[in-house]
Amino acid sequence: MAKDQKKQPRPKAETPKGFRDYFGADVTERKVMLDRIAEIYHRHGFDPLETSAVETVEALGKFLPDVDRPNAGVFAWQEEAVPGGGSGDWLALRYDLTAPLARVAAQFRNDLPSPYRRYAMGPVWRNEKPGPGRFRQFYQCDADTIGSASVAADAEICAMLADALEAVGIARGDYIVRINNRKVLNGVLEAAEVRPDQADDVLRQIDKFDKVGRDGVLALLTVGRKDDSGAEIEGVGLSQAQAAPVLAFLTSKGADNAATLENLRAAVGGSVIGAEGVGELAQIAAMLAAMGVGEDRAIIDPSIVRGLGYYTGPVFEAELTFEILDEKGRKRQFGSVAGGGRYDGLVERFTGQKVPATGVSIGVDRLLAALRAKGLAGEEAQGPVVVTVMDRDRMADYQAMAADLRAAGIRAEVYLGNPKNFGNQLKYADKRGAPVAVIQGGDEAARGVVQVKDLVLGARIAAEASHDEWKAQPAQTEVSRADLVAEVRRILG
Amino acid sequence: MAKDQKKQPRPKAETPKGFRDYFGADVTERKVMLDRIAEIYHRHGFDPLETSAVETVEALGKFLPDVDRPNAGVFAWQEEAVPGGGSGDWLALRYDLTAPLARVAAQFRNDLPSPYRRYAMGPVWRNEKPGPGRFRQFYQCDADTIGSASVAADAEICAMLADALEAVGIARGDYIVRINNRKVLNGVLEAAEVRPDQADDVLRQIDKFDKVGRDGVLALLTVGRKDDSGAEIEGVGLSQAQAAPVLAFLTSKGADNAATLENLRAAVGGSVIGAEGVGELAQIAAMLAAMGVGEDRAIIDPSIVRGLGYYTGPVFEAELTFEILDEKGRKRQFGSVAGGGRYDGLVERFTGQKVPATGVSIGVDRLLAALRAKGLAGEEAQGPVVVTVMDRDRMADYQAMAADLRAAGIRAEVYLGNPKNFGNQLKYADKRGAPVAVIQGGDEAARGVVQVKDLVLGARIAAEASHDEWKAQPAQTEVSRADLVAEVRRILG
Repeated sequence: MAKDQKKQPRPKAETPKGFRDYFGADVTERKVMLDRIAEIYHRHGFDPLETSAVETVEALGKFLPDVDRPNAGVFAWQEEAVPGGGSGDWLALRYDLTAPLARVAAQFRNDLPSPYRRYAMGPVWRNEKPGPGRFRQFYQCDADTIGSASVAADAEICAMLADALEAVGIARGDYIVRINNRKVLNGVLEAAEVRPDQADDVLRQIDKFDKVGRDGVLALLTVGRKDDSGAEIEGVGLSQAQAAPVLAFLTSKGADNAATLENLRAAVGGSVIGAEGVGELAQIAAMLAAMGVGEDRAIIDPSIVRGLGYYTGPVFEAELTFEILDEKGRKRQFGSVAGGGRYDGLVERFTGQKVPATGVSIGVDRLLAALRAKGLAGEEAQGPVVVTVMDRDRMADYQAMAADLRAAGIRAEVYLGNPKNFGNQLKYADKRGAPVAVIQGGDEAARGVVQVKDLVLGARIAAEASHDEWKAQPAQTEVSRADLVAEVRRILG
Repeated sequence: MAKDQKKQPRPKAETPKGFRDYFGADVTERKVMLDRIAEIYHRHGFDPLETSAVETVEALGKFLPDVDRPNAGVFAWQEEAVPGGGSGDWLALRYDLTAPLARVAAQFRNDLPSPYRRYAMGPVWRNEKPGPGRFRQFYQCDADTIGSASVAADAEICAMLADALEAVGIARGDYIVRINNRKVLNGVLEAAEVRPDQADDVLRQIDKFDKVGRDGVLALLTVGRKDDSGAEIEGVGLSQAQAAPVLAFLTSKGADNAATLENLRAAVGGSVIGAEGVGELAQIAAMLAAMGVGEDRAIIDPSIVRGLGYYTGPVFEAELTFEILDEKGRKRQFGSVAGGGRYDGLVERFTGQKVPATGVSIGVDRLLAALRAKGLAGEEAQGPVVVTVMDRDRMADYQAMAADLRAAGIRAEVYLGNPKNFGNQLKYADKRGAPVAVIQGGDEAARGVVQVKDLVLGARIAAEASHDEWKAQPAQTEVSRADLVAEVRRILG
């Protein structure tokens, strides 16, 4: 902090690569959406948890400091060495909200209620190569139940997810929560006599079901196929007879849950784990019905394969089913906005004890994009009423006007730039999205009146009206100063 | 991600030193407070801005990478080198919300409205030695106006600050916004013929006014004094005649703004800058009056010296004036919860152009502590109604009860742990702060009724009632299943 340091060149005013700023409505719209979700989560008994952005690399896991610098995917740095205490800890920014939850669940396991329902909303950081639309800081919004082995916890999360989507404005019929179960797949693999060493390969191929379809997966499970580039992709080597139950599983969705469950029972054959999985899905279906969540909102769907490799029991995904136009103007379904499922080993890393857990994560940016596409992203962000300055010696009068408007709950501000050029003030009001401008020159002040200009109407007249009509200026009204608030309120409707 | 890595020892489940987690009401109470402040800022025409947590060290400034690692006060790390592109940028977590604002104001100067009013709320990070109650991540809440040289901007922020304090629940009379002006002090120094090379020393001594009082500062400005330990502290070397106007300035607060301004006019003598400063304070006083902000809410007070060294014009500070008990049980005033003022050079670092700016920062943790001390921190955090599980085969029935309660807007959840031990379920409900437990065994189910247990009343009875009264259990009522929601609503009042 020496004052007479060498003069530095001017710094660049730039966000770091892959980071961005959020202005005005960007912030407000996301906040409104997350507040509505939080309200639903809270009503379901979930408590908020806000962990710090920084964790020890050790606690985050996965990214261990086995290299000089643990920078694979996370932003990490080493604390300064403690004098006489060895080298400093490696710290890192959290890369999701689940790893900190695991740490909290272990650290506070004697204090937290069990089961522990918590939700968390906030930014996470990924040290990845930034690209168009790909940022290194983004929001996540998670809800998890730790310490319950009951599928009632899974059913509750599915019902809550449906409620949350409706709370932010997605209409019933415009979304569906699809539910599958890893145990059913395990049962199918057992029934098909797939060798344990083939299971990972099978999962990898199943994961392509969305992309390559039934026949594609059949080829990948058996003899292999050519991809679009003509390259030969090796198959897993199952026989057609082994692949059949796997495909039966993936395509077993029936007309309703009852039919689907019937198909699944057939697909798992005599497998005990398979029967257990189908039983869990049947329980979830019954619980959703009891909670008043119909099959138009949440449904058993074995074609949902994303996450089947990661989760250990029920898996769920929320999809928006309405169509939007993609970049090329083609109609397509909006697609997935949330996913989750049941997983073990969350707390086990820390304590050695398996703790059952289930949860869901909403893709904040995707859901917000969907709301914007449907014109549902909060109320129209409205600029403030701008009180212009005709006479800089009467700032107090203009501020009194703004204060009166605010006291009536109306967003208002006085123009605070150099008032010399009145045109600049109207340009400013335009940039602010101001619905109304208030004007009072010395003449008006002497007569105790103000001019109230309806900028929305004014813009329409300027765009549509003839010169004569424009001159008549019906968008501007003179009212007594005492009627200012009433007139502005009238214009704002 | 090799699967057969060497087995690592179990990681420690610990927050990094100096960081902490926020649970439940901790999160909610702060959110309620910040939402109320945001509402006031928004109504005054301020727009939210959310910058990323990460900035380049270059843009943050002050902490330049002139050492191997720029870790003086910030958490910083170097990006990986770009192949063929030289060494990577140094990045850091923001240490306040002003430095990112400066970067934004420069980066987007052609797009933002001017003046630009913005508010920001969020965590900042300091790489400092943690101590009891001192954390390395904490919240800030700022509002600034960039690009207005008018003291109307300062007056507006003072009025807005008073409104914000009332909006979070601080009663009128329990706070005061005090306003001073660096220019007046400059005028006093000029009038006292303090040499420019003495000015910094004088400011340093004035800053001790809060601690050592009038006579202490007089000694420090002149011949020096002994501190509490008996050590001799050198004085600035002013004559008594030179020190007199400085002390007159510090003690010029009169019975009201008019009297204070009169005293200040005398203190600055013939100084032009001093007269300008007093004129600004007079304007601010007039504007506050016009906005309906009385001297019981915001007042000119030249004894406010904190920040006078940093700011270039008006300086403000909000103080809570009610008494609390300190750690030793002594009464003391709560003290400062917000401060700010006018500063230049914010954007100049980047663009070379001076851009006038003024702003205020609320100490989020201090204000929240004040609200808690007054019992004002949001509504009592209430736990959910807990629907207990007597019969694990009827989970769907219990979930239907919770769903009915939620549909009526009541926070409710089903117990999701192992239901075998009913006592554990009631212990759980207690830990959750549940106001009501719902119980339905097979017998009740057959009769179409539920038991509704008022846990708040029950706890009171258990604490106060005799054994016979306790046995009568008036805190538990049997109602028909159809009346569940009505009965719970009755108990919740």
